[in-house]
Amino acid sequence: MAALVSQLDLRVRYSETDQMGTFYNARALEWFECGRTQWLRQAGLPYTDMERRGAFLPLVEARVYFQGRAQYDDELRVVASAGLCGKARLKFAIRISQAHSGAPVAGGYTVHAVTDVSGRPIRPPAWLTELMARHGREDMELEDGTG
Amino acid sequence: MAALVSQLDLRVRYSETDQMGTFYNARALEWFECGRTQWLRQAGLPYTDMERRGAFLPLVEARVYFQGRAQYDDELRVVASAGLCGKARLKFAIRISQAHSGAPVAGGYTVHAVTDVSGRPIRPPAWLTELMARHGREDMELEDGTG
Amino acid sequence: MAALVSQLDLRVRYSETDQMGTFYNARALEWFECGRTQWLRQAGLPYTDMERRGAFLPLVEARVYFQGRAQYDDELRVVASAGLCGKARLKFAIRISQAHSGAPVAGGYTVHAVTDVSGRPIRPPAWLTELMARHGREDMELEDGTG
Amino acid sequence: MAALVSQLDLRVRYSETDQMGTFYNARALEWFECGRTQWLRQAGLPYTDMERRGAFLPLVEARVYFQGRAQYDDELRVVASAGLCGKARLKFAIRISQAHSGAPVAGGYTVHAVTDVSGRPIRPPAWLTELMARHGREDMELEDGTG
Repeated sequence: MAALVSQLDLRVRYSETDQMGTFYNARALEWFECGRTQWLRQAGLPYTDMERRGAFLPLVEARVYFQGRAQYDDELRVVASAGLCGKARLKFAIRISQAHSGAPVAGGYTVHAVTDVSGRPIRPPAWLTELMARHGREDMELEDGTG
Repeated sequence: MAALVSQLDLRVRYSETDQMGTFYNARALEWFECGRTQWLRQAGLPYTDMERRGAFLPLVEARVYFQGRAQYDDELRVVASAGLCGKARLKFAIRISQAHSGAPVAGGYTVHAVTDVSGRPIRPPAWLTELMARHGREDMELEDGTG
Repeated sequence: MAALVSQLDLRVRYSETDQMGTFYNARALEWFECGRTQWLRQAGLPYTDMERRGAFLPLVEARVYFQGRAQYDDELRVVASAGLCGKARLKFAIRISQAHSGAPVAGGYTVHAVTDVSGRPIRPPAWLTELMARHGREDMELEDGTG
Repeated sequence: MAALVSQLDLRVRYSETDQMGTFYNARALEWFECGRTQWLRQAGLPYTDMERRGAFLPLVEARVYFQGRAQYDDELRVVASAGLCGKARLKFAIRISQAHSGAPVAGGYTVHAVTDVSGRPIRPPAWLTELMARHGREDMELEDGTG
């Protein structure tokens, strides 16, 4: 089965710009989160349900490449895929581009531990590994910077 | 005993600017929070301790007057005072100005309920009313927009 | 002609929550901005066009009432209306509620000056007063806290 | 001459927490910015001066390792160093730890282009390469993830 690739469009908020006239760099990580949320929802397991079942996904690593400018009110497309990474980590790969021109804006990935509510690592539950087997990519290497 | 007036200096972060070249408006409410934190610490009851004792202070109202621009790296002075407001509310009055010139940047107030961890209103505990009796202002009317 | 009432749905981002488990208070002002953006777009004059024509709308005042909790991934409805306020100010009134239950989350208003790019007040251009005459409310008093 | 290592202490704001009870991941990049600002100031060239001289430092890459939790009001120490990276890029390496215990919170680096105000890459001006020769590290490799 082909890996799930989710898609979400959003508009750059004024609050996300900075005095350089483009988006402030940390906003990319917030948009990465929007991409993860959308991927999990489309995979059938909204992240709220995950937390309700006792599995949290704190970040252990994030890498962002800044590839182009985006201004207030620009419509951006956030494309996400995901996969297990090693035995106990999840990795989300994200690409953000201008929705109309396709011009790249930012890309990268986040790596997540699986923990309980107190932040202690847990073995990924069966429902999570099954979800990733069904919808995840198999090429998520920990050190593959291109995601 | 004179009411406590706390003071805190902070610098405008690049992340707090927007493409208009001044601070983004919602940042004022984040700086108001810095002012409250400082006031409670100087009053001898850091807000972390309050939450540990089971009293939370969610906002029920905020009012902000935007009075001047502030740019990246400007040093701002956040001056705060507080008081009980009615029987069960706290009010913090804040003034933010340029630390060097004194030029006003923003002012206003926030009104807070006292709740338990689940957000349910509780009667302000004795240690809180005593703290406010010792350090608070007595002129905190709910409708006094000037704080 | 009836005043324009715009509507926009958005989901609460994880980045917008805080450790109290609801949205952080300043996020309300960011959502107010989303409401303004939507209103201006539906009125036929996206805010980007306004800035291109040389008219900026910095805030001079904001008032927010916090009415209910909203958690990560909740779908919120942002309803906005606008009007001239005095001779040279614009006022946006905003109501945010849970999209499904209709439960109120936050409401309030922002008051805006009309300025040039450097922040200097200008007389509202004819195209702006005409837009507000066509789509704006006529009851936007400066001191009407309920918006 | 030994490379400059700057240090800045800051407290976690409530606005920087999320419902997991630790800081929201993107805040790390905002604290990285605080570290860069401090380094440049201590090196004698505040970033505001750089922009006034026409040199901007937009990010081309960021990498963050999340190493430990940090809660509201925790005092954090942000330690930064910097160096030229290739011919036309700057790299800042950052370590964030708990100010009192020294426990690591986050680390990583950002890589910056040197551009004019419109975002076009420029050759690093002499005053910038001289500054980096005086205060920078010489081991800033582009692919050295450990910074």
